[in-house]
Amino acid sequence: MIKFNNILVSLLAAIILCAPVSYTHANDTQKPNILLIMADDLGYADVGFNGSKDIITPNIDDLANKGTSFSEAYVAHPFCGPSRAGLLTGRYPHKIGAQFNLPTRGSHLGVPTSEMFMSKFLQNNGYFTGAIGKWHLGDAPQYHPNQRGFDEYYGFLGGGHNYFPEQFAAAYKRQKEQGLSNIFEYITPLEHNGKEVTETEYITDALSREAVTFVNKAVSKTQPFFLYLAYNAPHVPLEAKQEDMDMFPNIKDKKRKTYAGMVYALDRGVGRVVDALKKNGQLDNTLIVFLSDNGGKLSQGANNDPLKAGKGSAQEGGFRVPMFFHWPNHVPSGQRFEHPVSSLDFYPTFAALAGAEVPADKQLDGKNMWEAFKANKNPHQDDLIFLLRHRGGYSDAAVRRNQYKALKIADKPWQLFDIDNDIEENHDISAQHPLILKDMVREMEKWSWDNQQPLWFHEHYEGAHWRLNAMPRFEQTFKTDQ
Amino acid sequence: MIKFNNILVSLLAAIILCAPVSYTHANDTQKPNILLIMADDLGYADVGFNGSKDIITPNIDDLANKGTSFSEAYVAHPFCGPSRAGLLTGRYPHKIGAQFNLPTRGSHLGVPTSEMFMSKFLQNNGYFTGAIGKWHLGDAPQYHPNQRGFDEYYGFLGGGHNYFPEQFAAAYKRQKEQGLSNIFEYITPLEHNGKEVTETEYITDALSREAVTFVNKAVSKTQPFFLYLAYNAPHVPLEAKQEDMDMFPNIKDKKRKTYAGMVYALDRGVGRVVDALKKNGQLDNTLIVFLSDNGGKLSQGANNDPLKAGKGSAQEGGFRVPMFFHWPNHVPSGQRFEHPVSSLDFYPTFAALAGAEVPADKQLDGKNMWEAFKANKNPHQDDLIFLLRHRGGYSDAAVRRNQYKALKIADKPWQLFDIDNDIEENHDISAQHPLILKDMVREMEKWSWDNQQPLWFHEHYEGAHWRLNAMPRFEQTFKTDQ
Amino acid sequence: MIKFNNILVSLLAAIILCAPVSYTHANDTQKPNILLIMADDLGYADVGFNGSKDIITPNIDDLANKGTSFSEAYVAHPFCGPSRAGLLTGRYPHKIGAQFNLPTRGSHLGVPTSEMFMSKFLQNNGYFTGAIGKWHLGDAPQYHPNQRGFDEYYGFLGGGHNYFPEQFAAAYKRQKEQGLSNIFEYITPLEHNGKEVTETEYITDALSREAVTFVNKAVSKTQPFFLYLAYNAPHVPLEAKQEDMDMFPNIKDKKRKTYAGMVYALDRGVGRVVDALKKNGQLDNTLIVFLSDNGGKLSQGANNDPLKAGKGSAQEGGFRVPMFFHWPNHVPSGQRFEHPVSSLDFYPTFAALAGAEVPADKQLDGKNMWEAFKANKNPHQDDLIFLLRHRGGYSDAAVRRNQYKALKIADKPWQLFDIDNDIEENHDISAQHPLILKDMVREMEKWSWDNQQPLWFHEHYEGAHWRLNAMPRFEQTFKTDQ
Repeated sequence: MIKFNNILVSLLAAIILCAPVSYTHANDTQKPNILLIMADDLGYADVGFNGSKDIITPNIDDLANKGTSFSEAYVAHPFCGPSRAGLLTGRYPHKIGAQFNLPTRGSHLGVPTSEMFMSKFLQNNGYFTGAIGKWHLGDAPQYHPNQRGFDEYYGFLGGGHNYFPEQFAAAYKRQKEQGLSNIFEYITPLEHNGKEVTETEYITDALSREAVTFVNKAVSKTQPFFLYLAYNAPHVPLEAKQEDMDMFPNIKDKKRKTYAGMVYALDRGVGRVVDALKKNGQLDNTLIVFLSDNGGKLSQGANNDPLKAGKGSAQEGGFRVPMFFHWPNHVPSGQRFEHPVSSLDFYPTFAALAGAEVPADKQLDGKNMWEAFKANKNPHQDDLIFLLRHRGGYSDAAVRRNQYKALKIADKPWQLFDIDNDIEENHDISAQHPLILKDMVREMEKWSWDNQQPLWFHEHYEGAHWRLNAMPRFEQTFKTDQ
Repeated sequence: MIKFNNILVSLLAAIILCAPVSYTHANDTQKPNILLIMADDLGYADVGFNGSKDIITPNIDDLANKGTSFSEAYVAHPFCGPSRAGLLTGRYPHKIGAQFNLPTRGSHLGVPTSEMFMSKFLQNNGYFTGAIGKWHLGDAPQYHPNQRGFDEYYGFLGGGHNYFPEQFAAAYKRQKEQGLSNIFEYITPLEHNGKEVTETEYITDALSREAVTFVNKAVSKTQPFFLYLAYNAPHVPLEAKQEDMDMFPNIKDKKRKTYAGMVYALDRGVGRVVDALKKNGQLDNTLIVFLSDNGGKLSQGANNDPLKAGKGSAQEGGFRVPMFFHWPNHVPSGQRFEHPVSSLDFYPTFAALAGAEVPADKQLDGKNMWEAFKANKNPHQDDLIFLLRHRGGYSDAAVRRNQYKALKIADKPWQLFDIDNDIEENHDISAQHPLILKDMVREMEKWSWDNQQPLWFHEHYEGAHWRLNAMPRFEQTFKTDQ
Repeated sequence: MIKFNNILVSLLAAIILCAPVSYTHANDTQKPNILLIMADDLGYADVGFNGSKDIITPNIDDLANKGTSFSEAYVAHPFCGPSRAGLLTGRYPHKIGAQFNLPTRGSHLGVPTSEMFMSKFLQNNGYFTGAIGKWHLGDAPQYHPNQRGFDEYYGFLGGGHNYFPEQFAAAYKRQKEQGLSNIFEYITPLEHNGKEVTETEYITDALSREAVTFVNKAVSKTQPFFLYLAYNAPHVPLEAKQEDMDMFPNIKDKKRKTYAGMVYALDRGVGRVVDALKKNGQLDNTLIVFLSDNGGKLSQGANNDPLKAGKGSAQEGGFRVPMFFHWPNHVPSGQRFEHPVSSLDFYPTFAALAGAEVPADKQLDGKNMWEAFKANKNPHQDDLIFLLRHRGGYSDAAVRRNQYKALKIADKPWQLFDIDNDIEENHDISAQHPLILKDMVREMEKWSWDNQQPLWFHEHYEGAHWRLNAMPRFEQTFKTDQ
């Protein structure tokens, strides 16, 4: 992070070394701040920069337009917990037993500590680190954000939260007074570094406020910062401020209207954080990454047009997400990047931007996509990008390579799409390219062999189902006619 | 341990340091000896101090009456192997894969060496340690008592043993002569530190004799001692000396009479060990803990009145056991402690009495109950105490919190008892307190998530059953109507 | 390895020390070279030294006749991958999760790196090491021969290979040109230390050539060598040179004729390697071990007479293999060793010959059989030798002790054979020796308890089958009437 003292020291050092130095030069060699903003269940088509017709996101769009937006950004899983585990570990969740959301009613489990989080890696390499918002990666002490590499944490450890403190705090209080101890995580108090806090603001606004606080604190450090700002919006429960819903008089559907209000509040938060960066002179030195953890949930107000299906699906609507990069002078302005990238790429990419080397024993499933990105080339030429979602007794699967996407849904045979020219997955071309399809399926089968058994299930019945059906039943998943 | 040489050294040291010292003072600051006596399948009502009307246990009663007896002492499991694994590791057996007895016909398995036994911990902290009697925690070299922290071991490694050497030695000899190598562990020779011995006494008397030998040896050391005296009596086979049975002319039932004789021999042994302690001036410096590993087996002569059911059950008769503490000047005399305690508490409690700190990476599921015990307060106020017993395709479960006990048996719905006022579990109050019940069940469900798969089964068919039924099937175990 | 410089140094050292020294003396105290030649699916009766009437193996026979052949040599498993895993790790494959062949269509799996291979051990102890031919123990980087203790590797990593380069290279090229990436491993290019090579010779001749190259290279080193020469011949596909088939004009059966030609080519290769040893003056200093990885496959031209069944079976034809040792002045000449030995014995035996100590934490399931072998005594007196082969829903099993072999096939009851006098397993004597049978089965049951779950299956459907049937179902495998 560029701060006055740093510049002074740099200048002095330059003078001593009798070497000329300029601000720009110093800037180029310094580690950038990284601000990773993650929305929750945000639809592909629900931001202005992806063409939303009803929801407005002026602050997000401003950044996206001054940076580069991505048309083919994939996350590692089509729902929350595994997608986040993938993002922060740089690994397919299937490789670390994190294919399911953590148990609904709590557990002592979490993403294995043997997997060093991106945050820990950046912390080890001189970053001041913060996480704000939803965690969903383990609430036992050893899995707490502060133990996974975040100097600062403000938020809630579960998989979601109600939005209005005056309502959820009252419900929580009533249950406590009845002597109950196992209370639904959506209504428990928020925390700051492990200490319960009394939050009073609408949660999206509260998280934005804390992000501003973090930025202000970070600039007093001599370190660059990494901030993981994980909004729970617009995840259910659908709860928006009236004033935010009032921004959308033309939306009549109650759910859509509420959802729109929630996105609007999120957008306001992004604006506030950007203001804080500007005020502190850090915007030019900060890579801002914005994305959703998975596709929007169609039954809860989201819109993934033109993608098929939504959250949970192996079709594009499940795991192709809205995304942009913003970093003046480093990220092309006004560009649309139309090659596939994966959230698994962030770990090695951020590592490279931080000038730090990932330990040899830390496995990563993505790759540093920065050079290809800067050259507007496909970072994943001939690579395979996988999506595997276990269901009750079978699995849905997808594998992407170059223009092709192979897709397996339920008990239907594998299909093949030219996804570059058929984004809607309408035209199955498997009959035209049987060997290509078979080859891609075989590659995915090969990939599957070192998947781990799930370390947990969202509900116990899922575990029983898994075992009774001898899951993963990949002999069915990877069956082809050839 | 206070011995003449020790006192002399202490006195000399005191003189050199010009500081006054008294025996009592020295005693207070010294680590006590710990004598942990465990009976096998002894019924709650089968000791005088718990009100037995037919069996007499004069030596046990004398200690119990001069110490404190416990009305609500729980063990970690309602049968042998897991209960002992829990006691010595301080962990619920479910957390370490030890939910079943080791295989009947032998194996190379045992309680994972990654779990430091209480004995190893005390040995590391200066104790001279001994185990005498039944082991049942692994008979491969790495699981041998001498490898788990016991300086001395005398006994048999399996899950039980016949009692009359003249009989079992002959049977063993016959089988050896036929060239057989896999001989039922109840009739194989006993051992001393891994070397086979020729035992000639009735086993209960033999174990008492060895305990006396250990005590005599221990007093020659400058260390305190920890002795784990694990009688197999009155576990089947029901074999008593005639003279001991003759003590119970009024007992007509053959099984009960034999059982009574076995308990009487055990009581005689306790008396002998106490005599050895007295003779060596160690009684006042020794914490004696006496308990059973689980409830009595009703079909084999035991009596758990007023508790329901017996060995193997999640009802009180399965895992609430007779217990006392004796330690002059430290344990209240003539007291009945009427709060719940757990055998899982021993590890941290003994550690505290030994003035030693448990390593941070050693997980413990109980707590140091000493201060609460001394203050006659509930050491487990608001805590949860669990009992989980896997059966063929389902599990029985119990959870205790304060006055409440929630109980799940087979496919019956969860029940709730005010166990403080309804020790017989007669009055289900679940309808009156549905939220309390649900809350306790949810807590147990939460606890269950990091249970481990069993590392072994008593018989292979149990393993097949486990897998065929997709056990543990907790979605059934923790189902509530609410 | 004795080389001129070594001798010179030895002589000089001897002179300095004023001690007489002779070549023979030096030879006795030096580590021998070890040449381990493994044929693939070679039948018990398909070498001259075991009495083949139609196939001639002059070079192999010459060595066998000048050395010692074995009538009761067992491998650890009746098919390829597990047998090789057993050989190189010194462990029953069931103990390390390697009970199945690696997946047909590739995986990132391999024999756990926690098991130090024999090659790594010998390399650590000063050997120059090479592997040539079939690997089949993992093709991900961490499982590559060069990572498992082989300084040199030439061959193919999969479970087999086609033999004629002009054919398989063309097929490979066609598939590559179609843009396919997952190509059948039998037709992919061979490699040298991880680098693809263009092989032009018939594969058996190519492997022989590389073995000669290795020997020539090894003699330039000051180290002894260990060469693991793993021919894929005469494993399918049945592909022989016409000139080799022409050696067998009397064999009319097409498969047998081709098979015979393949064996003949293998024999020619053995001759070439021996010539290289002779030329370099190393034959007298080299222990040559020759064996097959499992029994011959009866449907593919092999002959295991007089043994019952073949590859894959728990009968003798499945895992009793042709074997000889050759080492002038160390291995008796012209002897037939008629006691059981196991390929699991190689690891500790080679370690002893190398004068090196196996690390305490390296478990081994065999034993050093050298002293007993030299004394022509049974190295496995009273020991148990196991064979366990999992099938679809059940397991076949065999256990050998002294003259007895207990056998369990499918759902038939256990049988007992006096295998010393009934090599054909014709006369079930279980009724005469029920206690012996039961005792052996109980020992095998005891052995089974610490078997590991398979880490992989040849095909996914096998894994599903395994789980759906709650395998291993040992309660059925070890059921006896008694």
